[in-house]
Amino acid sequence: MSEVHAARRERLRERCAAAGAAAALVTRPANVRYLTGCSPQGAALLVGPGTQAALLHLRPPPDDMADGQPPDDLRAVLLPSPDGDAAVAAADLAREWHADSLAVEEHHLTVARHRAIGSVAAGLPLSDLGGAVEQLRLVKDEHEIAALRIAAEIADQALGELLESILVGRTERHLALELERRLVDHGAEGPAFRTSVGTGPHSGTARHAPTDRRVEEGDFLTVRLGACYRGYRCEVGRTFVIGTAPAAWQVELYELVFAAQRAGREALAPGVACRDVDRATRAPLTAAGHAEGLAAWSGHGVGLEIDEDPQLSPAAMGKLDACVPVTVEPGVHLPGRGGVRIDDTLVVRPTADGGPELLTITTKELLAL
Amino acid sequence: MSEVHAARRERLRERCAAAGAAAALVTRPANVRYLTGCSPQGAALLVGPGTQAALLHLRPPPDDMADGQPPDDLRAVLLPSPDGDAAVAAADLAREWHADSLAVEEHHLTVARHRAIGSVAAGLPLSDLGGAVEQLRLVKDEHEIAALRIAAEIADQALGELLESILVGRTERHLALELERRLVDHGAEGPAFRTSVGTGPHSGTARHAPTDRRVEEGDFLTVRLGACYRGYRCEVGRTFVIGTAPAAWQVELYELVFAAQRAGREALAPGVACRDVDRATRAPLTAAGHAEGLAAWSGHGVGLEIDEDPQLSPAAMGKLDACVPVTVEPGVHLPGRGGVRIDDTLVVRPTADGGPELLTITTKELLAL
Repeated sequence: MSEVHAARRERLRERCAAAGAAAALVTRPANVRYLTGCSPQGAALLVGPGTQAALLHLRPPPDDMADGQPPDDLRAVLLPSPDGDAAVAAADLAREWHADSLAVEEHHLTVARHRAIGSVAAGLPLSDLGGAVEQLRLVKDEHEIAALRIAAEIADQALGELLESILVGRTERHLALELERRLVDHGAEGPAFRTSVGTGPHSGTARHAPTDRRVEEGDFLTVRLGACYRGYRCEVGRTFVIGTAPAAWQVELYELVFAAQRAGREALAPGVACRDVDRATRAPLTAAGHAEGLAAWSGHGVGLEIDEDPQLSPAAMGKLDACVPVTVEPGVHLPGRGGVRIDDTLVVRPTADGGPELLTITTKELLAL
Repeated sequence: MSEVHAARRERLRERCAAAGAAAALVTRPANVRYLTGCSPQGAALLVGPGTQAALLHLRPPPDDMADGQPPDDLRAVLLPSPDGDAAVAAADLAREWHADSLAVEEHHLTVARHRAIGSVAAGLPLSDLGGAVEQLRLVKDEHEIAALRIAAEIADQALGELLESILVGRTERHLALELERRLVDHGAEGPAFRTSVGTGPHSGTARHAPTDRRVEEGDFLTVRLGACYRGYRCEVGRTFVIGTAPAAWQVELYELVFAAQRAGREALAPGVACRDVDRATRAPLTAAGHAEGLAAWSGHGVGLEIDEDPQLSPAAMGKLDACVPVTVEPGVHLPGRGGVRIDDTLVVRPTADGGPELLTITTKELLAL
């Protein structure tokens, strides 16, 4: 795997060279991990000048290297002081290496750290690396997609087991904890994000923080969870109805959101504008009078972070590529009554390859539990 | 409670006025919560000029207001666009309010956001608010200490129940999840931080990420957990031995760390330098030849964040005050063998009031489980 990371660093080096920066300082943890395979606490990666690269980090193993060990082909520098700032030390190293400019992640570094880097690296012009690494992370390789596929399997398993248990009378909080335990049981490093369980009036929202409300007969129950596997994060969300038979309004709302979600999934293809996928997902909901209260996005990329580029939203720029994993997750929440949310993780694939690959395969029929 | 938050904002206003800033923009979530009682996702608080204050936030209830509702005496401004930046909108509002300067949290704002604020607030000089709010947060009032006391009780209960169950053969991961479930059972909003369970060679470290290693006879088992209650976070850490009788080296190491931890606890008093508490804790361990490998700190403040000021470390500046809650948590880890870590949360109190108040009361005898 270390060749994979070396090749990624080489691509970053090319981008920097094209932008006129001799060296790049990467501090955003997911970016460090993408380029090295690990992200020890407080780590900073210095790439260049030339073929040089070093990972500066704070704390020795074994405490905090749970996210992997630095690859052998990368110089690992443990800071002498545990209070040190790896980014500042990296800027110092860039000077030692005679870099004549340094690009930093201005969207991640605080003003205070940026100033500290500037004073250590006096005379070394700082520029903005921007989202260069995030751009590299957009299209996933088959190793990354394999990790996402396993993450999705784990989430599906955890969700499937929950559906076989008695739900009435249990609290949102307990169902969420139970799901997180099952994720770990099935091999996840942990939940990909805080598990959301909303029942009754809490159903249908994107990020409902579980409360002590108990599941009751007649409720909609919305569950949203994901697994983290080898650092890669997926998500799946489903809405169920509790009891023998759903009410007419529940069936109608479910069918509407299901149609919107299917339209979004079917719109996924290489070359399609992100905003067009959003429009396809949003249109049926807007047409049915639910424009107000819809989330700002219909989906988003996933990978080393649970919410990364591309954004599927009305203002999104750019087009989808093959091998980009995204969520499609429309939802309608009726204040006081609850609602429906359906959420899948898929990988964009060309039609010739069978179209979008659905990673989260839990049924989307309206189950009465 | 809203008077409490208004009084805190007034104290911040006084600090700003003394530093020559007409208005302050607070973005660090724990600081926003301290000053308003809530911290909706992406919120920014604008304090001043004059008696004005507004909380700008992104998302409407009910999704993300789990951390409380804005108090009635504070103007709450919901941003029109869900993609908006509340800090940028707050800078715009500061201009509307005719502030002639604005202090921002340079240790929290990224370079990119700071630049966006600067361009919206062209002509409005930006200065650094620094850790002004963190300084206000140091000394806790009795409401805050009451919340910490309950958080500590919850953690003690969760830990106590675990000790009554069978441990041999269970994995670190499962014990950690079990503890987190019990925290929620007993009324915590959630764990105060990622629960650490380390057995055998993993014992004795501060932040061991739980693995699939199973507890075995003869192991040291180190557990570190905390509850979050009304936003306040405590921590407790204990080390146990598994089996009928500890080995001689285990007893010796345990007594050493226990003596260090007691020395640290006994050193806590108003007016004592933070570094002197660190020295008291560290000295017995250093004298026994364990200087190498000790953590950089012997303890730290707790409150709305699990790791806040003051730091108890060799380089720490400043003295303790009454009503400052801190941890005392020395540990020794012998590579390949494991080790001992003992961690309490206490509140600094004057001797006249009985000295430091121990919040985490789980026994520190060496239990053989």
